[in-house]
Amino acid sequence: MFLGDAPDQLAAKTATGIVHWRRDWCLGQLQLPSCKADLGLPGMSVSEAAAAGCRTLVIGVANRGGVIPETWIPTLVNALEAGMDVAAGLHQRVADIDDIAGAAAANGRQLFDVRHPTQTFSVGSGERRPGKRLLTVGTDCSVGKMYTALAIGHELQSRNAKADFRATGQTGIFIAGGGVSVDAVVADFISGATEWLTPANEPDHWDLVEGQGSLFHPSYAGVTMGLVHGAQPDALIVCHEPTRSHMRGLPHQPLPDVQDCIDGHVAAARLTNPDAVCLGVAVNTSALSSDDERRRCLSEIEQRTGLPAVDPVIDGVAALVAKMV
Amino acid sequence: MFLGDAPDQLAAKTATGIVHWRRDWCLGQLQLPSCKADLGLPGMSVSEAAAAGCRTLVIGVANRGGVIPETWIPTLVNALEAGMDVAAGLHQRVADIDDIAGAAAANGRQLFDVRHPTQTFSVGSGERRPGKRLLTVGTDCSVGKMYTALAIGHELQSRNAKADFRATGQTGIFIAGGGVSVDAVVADFISGATEWLTPANEPDHWDLVEGQGSLFHPSYAGVTMGLVHGAQPDALIVCHEPTRSHMRGLPHQPLPDVQDCIDGHVAAARLTNPDAVCLGVAVNTSALSSDDERRRCLSEIEQRTGLPAVDPVIDGVAALVAKMV
Repeated sequence: MFLGDAPDQLAAKTATGIVHWRRDWCLGQLQLPSCKADLGLPGMSVSEAAAAGCRTLVIGVANRGGVIPETWIPTLVNALEAGMDVAAGLHQRVADIDDIAGAAAANGRQLFDVRHPTQTFSVGSGERRPGKRLLTVGTDCSVGKMYTALAIGHELQSRNAKADFRATGQTGIFIAGGGVSVDAVVADFISGATEWLTPANEPDHWDLVEGQGSLFHPSYAGVTMGLVHGAQPDALIVCHEPTRSHMRGLPHQPLPDVQDCIDGHVAAARLTNPDAVCLGVAVNTSALSSDDERRRCLSEIEQRTGLPAVDPVIDGVAALVAKMV
Repeated sequence: MFLGDAPDQLAAKTATGIVHWRRDWCLGQLQLPSCKADLGLPGMSVSEAAAAGCRTLVIGVANRGGVIPETWIPTLVNALEAGMDVAAGLHQRVADIDDIAGAAAANGRQLFDVRHPTQTFSVGSGERRPGKRLLTVGTDCSVGKMYTALAIGHELQSRNAKADFRATGQTGIFIAGGGVSVDAVVADFISGATEWLTPANEPDHWDLVEGQGSLFHPSYAGVTMGLVHGAQPDALIVCHEPTRSHMRGLPHQPLPDVQDCIDGHVAAARLTNPDAVCLGVAVNTSALSSDDERRRCLSEIEQRTGLPAVDPVIDGVAALVAKMV
């Protein structure tokens, strides 16, 4: 897990997600000197990683805009020279960087740019199709949409319900081994790519669709909108981080109210699924200092919204799944 | 103007727009046998066009999905062999078709794929910037958003106001000689590309931003959302075609009510510009059979919305511009 110079733990959320859901695949972490993220894995240099049997260096850090800084390149080249493949999920392709492409070719190694769809899509049709779908949405980016969808998928599968997690971002794709990074498709095809990812299915089958961005985030709301329309969700879960003072990356932009966020996403979803409802709120309470504070936060959200509110990491998602079956 | 096998007049809206706004640039039209569109230009074969002095064959027809059918290729190759350049604004690049790229190279001609941005963009910031902006939005695709923005730009310029038309689609780019086809940028950068296209300006300068799609169109609402947020419009004009029975291309999808369309777009716009208002409704009444019917339609919309409603082609846009200055 290459963490680069991640300015905070959230910047390494790709690595964090992979380690959480695929711990047995991960042998170590590699941090550059100014890195502020830590996965709790053994720290390794490139040569130590190669000696430990690492077969792939995964770029587990995402920066705004998805560009690969110059300072990362020597480490990535070293990894290829040490016999590892390199996998990335950024907007900029590692395969487009001459030094990296050259080192991969010279050493017979592979480059995986999982954010870049290799197939073409049709524009979305909005036509109703069988099968049930749940989409996680949020008051902001990086509030637990992928985690919540994965946790609900596991809970359903543990009850022997028919369920598939559908990854829409790089971390989810690394975890699931497939999916479409909807923020990287051409804008006209956002909803079409989502329809492709969540096709017609058995009437009692659930797709658990990983959400992206927020309809209230000025940078990414277009992606969210196409994803909402393409997923045709029967059910929405709104994800929220209660201590966030502004939208991620935008100090001038306040967070929406949770109820406004529910109303906005449900209204958008009803364009393609008139029966769409919000089933509950998934709250990341990790930044709250006491269990009392955590309980009070969840209880307030439940009272204001009339919906169950849980922290999926602490409480699990049984209270949400109870409304699905 | 190459019209291919356009199934109806609307499919040739790129050609129609160029001919309307740049009539003196257009010498003739070329239709394949099954073509149902007609621009009223002299019909020409490739050799007649070359003899008449045509220097560029413009693909003036757009089909759903933006793919170039096999049946068009011989004509495009002939044009290149006859000494013409080829310009297109489809999702599929003419430069990516081997026979066309080969003919261009062999004959020293140029290929222009205007839909494909050649620059890279940042993600949108949503930060307020000086200058005034008007965005045309709509109850559907193909209801007059580009025409209305161009007409308002002309009206403002005729009053010596500072104004620029900002093209966001292929037809507008052909007319303006520049712009960004926002439906062709990578999804994460829709609002960022729009911010780039409509930068900070003098406080009394108006950008007239061409809208795309509709927040109520399941295929394209993601593009519309990013465009609304990136443009940060002070003013919106809702464009409408009153005889449309369903969203273009989607027989199962009803059109939104005009007032719901105003409310939805204003609410979205206020995320990045809390002062956004809708100034009026631009109605394409060309399918109404009598002047009485036309007047009644506009009057009903004015009564229901409390806003001026005009047909820009028949009435002009002075009633809308009166609310801007």
